[in-house]
Amino acid sequence: MASAPYRAALEHLAAGHERLVEETIRLTEIPAPFFGEEARGRAYLDMLREAGLEECEMDAEGNVMGLRRGLGNGSLIVVAAHLDTVFPAGTDLKVKRDGTKLLAPGIGDDTRSLAINLALLRAMDAAGLRTRHDILFLGNVGEEGLGDLRGVRFLFTKGRYAGRIAAFISVEGPMGMGTIVSGATGSLRYRATFRGPGGHSFMDFGTVSPSFAMAEAIVALSRINVPAQPKTTFSASVVGGGTSVNSIPNEVWMEVDLRSDSASELQRLDRAFHEIVQRAVAAENAARRTEKGSITVQLKKIGDRPAGAVDERSELVAHARAAASALGHAPRTVASSTDASIPISLGIPGIAISAGAGGGAHTLDEWVDMEPGQTLRDMQLAFATLLATAGLETE
Amino acid sequence: MASAPYRAALEHLAAGHERLVEETIRLTEIPAPFFGEEARGRAYLDMLREAGLEECEMDAEGNVMGLRRGLGNGSLIVVAAHLDTVFPAGTDLKVKRDGTKLLAPGIGDDTRSLAINLALLRAMDAAGLRTRHDILFLGNVGEEGLGDLRGVRFLFTKGRYAGRIAAFISVEGPMGMGTIVSGATGSLRYRATFRGPGGHSFMDFGTVSPSFAMAEAIVALSRINVPAQPKTTFSASVVGGGTSVNSIPNEVWMEVDLRSDSASELQRLDRAFHEIVQRAVAAENAARRTEKGSITVQLKKIGDRPAGAVDERSELVAHARAAASALGHAPRTVASSTDASIPISLGIPGIAISAGAGGGAHTLDEWVDMEPGQTLRDMQLAFATLLATAGLETE
Repeated sequence: MASAPYRAALEHLAAGHERLVEETIRLTEIPAPFFGEEARGRAYLDMLREAGLEECEMDAEGNVMGLRRGLGNGSLIVVAAHLDTVFPAGTDLKVKRDGTKLLAPGIGDDTRSLAINLALLRAMDAAGLRTRHDILFLGNVGEEGLGDLRGVRFLFTKGRYAGRIAAFISVEGPMGMGTIVSGATGSLRYRATFRGPGGHSFMDFGTVSPSFAMAEAIVALSRINVPAQPKTTFSASVVGGGTSVNSIPNEVWMEVDLRSDSASELQRLDRAFHEIVQRAVAAENAARRTEKGSITVQLKKIGDRPAGAVDERSELVAHARAAASALGHAPRTVASSTDASIPISLGIPGIAISAGAGGGAHTLDEWVDMEPGQTLRDMQLAFATLLATAGLETE
Repeated sequence: MASAPYRAALEHLAAGHERLVEETIRLTEIPAPFFGEEARGRAYLDMLREAGLEECEMDAEGNVMGLRRGLGNGSLIVVAAHLDTVFPAGTDLKVKRDGTKLLAPGIGDDTRSLAINLALLRAMDAAGLRTRHDILFLGNVGEEGLGDLRGVRFLFTKGRYAGRIAAFISVEGPMGMGTIVSGATGSLRYRATFRGPGGHSFMDFGTVSPSFAMAEAIVALSRINVPAQPKTTFSASVVGGGTSVNSIPNEVWMEVDLRSDSASELQRLDRAFHEIVQRAVAAENAARRTEKGSITVQLKKIGDRPAGAVDERSELVAHARAAASALGHAPRTVASSTDASIPISLGIPGIAISAGAGGGAHTLDEWVDMEPGQTLRDMQLAFATLLATAGLETE
């Protein structure tokens, strides 16, 4: 990587520091709650266009992207950052400075990465770096929360590049610079609503109660055996329902979170959860009176993120490991739920790596440190990984 | 009862029908949510005073009352109706008419009874009826919901007549005219709040969860054996808590209702509930990790109504039975939670009987039928029971 053109690109990156800071701030201050990314998407699309990319567009899902052509006959590599944040519309996004620190909701997760990818692109152009493969620069929607990875899911399954992408690199918010997310923690989330006839707590005593059925289901959930490796978990996270203390409730509900680093373990847990819920309902209908109506349950899926892992011996992971090592970090592969989960679940190499230093993700005190020297060093993790994966031409 | 003075009193009752209707409407349209009975109480106090009672007063709890002296050296009998309704401030209380029906929230439970007791008093005076015992005419607060019988409780335990009351008759909203409430269904109500350290549903998996502890408690509650007679019941009525689907909750809560017609069964159920809750918390703390904190539970009593029963052979019940039979109704004693529960729990004879026809109690469509003939017949249940209990002087 220490070729003269690469060194020239680094000089361009260093010289562009103030612009990187300015663009980070500009993008951060445009609200982009998940399902409300359009304004930030349009702004980023303009920046991609202005940087000279081809085929610039916003797709039907709201992702924005542009293509940097390779030398021809290559594959297609995606380098992405996500447009969306966890912060609802109306959140104060004004960026504050504290020395080299910039503070604002969403600035690290993942807005700075959008600006960094743009900076890498300009440095490649300025230094005349050519790659064998085409590179799609992507600002995608729907990474956070109920967005459920919808942006990258669309790109890989319905977008115009579906079926043509060979590798995917997500430049993500602050994590250890040696951390390489090469595994996809899958999750399934449900809102389970238990309904029954309800009634007066005293007069109608003996009538089936949805709160008893739900409690049976939660207790059974709490007793499922899950493996420590691959890590597999469950939680009965939110509960609600009932109208007054002197009434048998006619409706109670819970939100349940099921996760695993393994697709097959997640499937096994999911089956067990469905069985548990049905058994709990049947048990309550058998235990008490049903003349006025039986307990029923409705399971609504409110989250679905795939599980899986990239082959540790894949080139993509090797490139990221090499880049981390070269920068002095001990590489470490982990599983998480990131945009890379989509290609991983489809058997396509995908990773997420860190854009740089910061903290407080998902809090109002979120921050990044953009001290120039450290920023330049940290950016090289994404830069070197991207160039190696895209097949940098070296004379 | 068919003495000439009694017949004269009935004629006065019949002649006063329009005034009874007018006063029912006037009182109904004064808001009186439980804990907000003062305006209606003041209005009723003025009416008691105007009717010529002695010792008229509003006590420290908000009850209003006045005394009609007996012939001397007698006991003290209370005839009551409750001022409060279940309807919150701001409810439209405008009385609508539909033929002989009057419709408005609270009109039957128990506002018409206030007006009826006043009509009975005036008829006694007009017909020159004298009784051996003193009669306290009472409009009391706090019968409904969280009022928890506070008005009558104060009267019997802290008021100036505490320790001096020999019998208590509550004239209540519409129920079968043969129905005599001579038993007190006791209830204990709790809000149980389960707390723990919380955490991320995936990262912190294995940490104790308050939702698992609460579910264990609900399941154990659902399996308690309670007797069918004396009727004893439980309900996990309202549940809530948790912050987001991807978090182990740090707090969940439930509202539980325990009831029994027997004081000792209620006590037994209450002890079992306390044990169940503590056992569920201990089980969760044993089943999962507690390094970040253990599960704790707080039990807040949000309701407490006593249980018990009047001796079926008591004079008070005999008088009510005789009055019901004389009016052509088959008398039937039942247990419920009424203002009579307080004297009953203190070993003092107390009953609740119906003021007349109506329906829809505790709904916005509440109504009473004040057809003159039926109203006159129905009022005699309370009138005859009161006169017999107060020791009507007959020549």
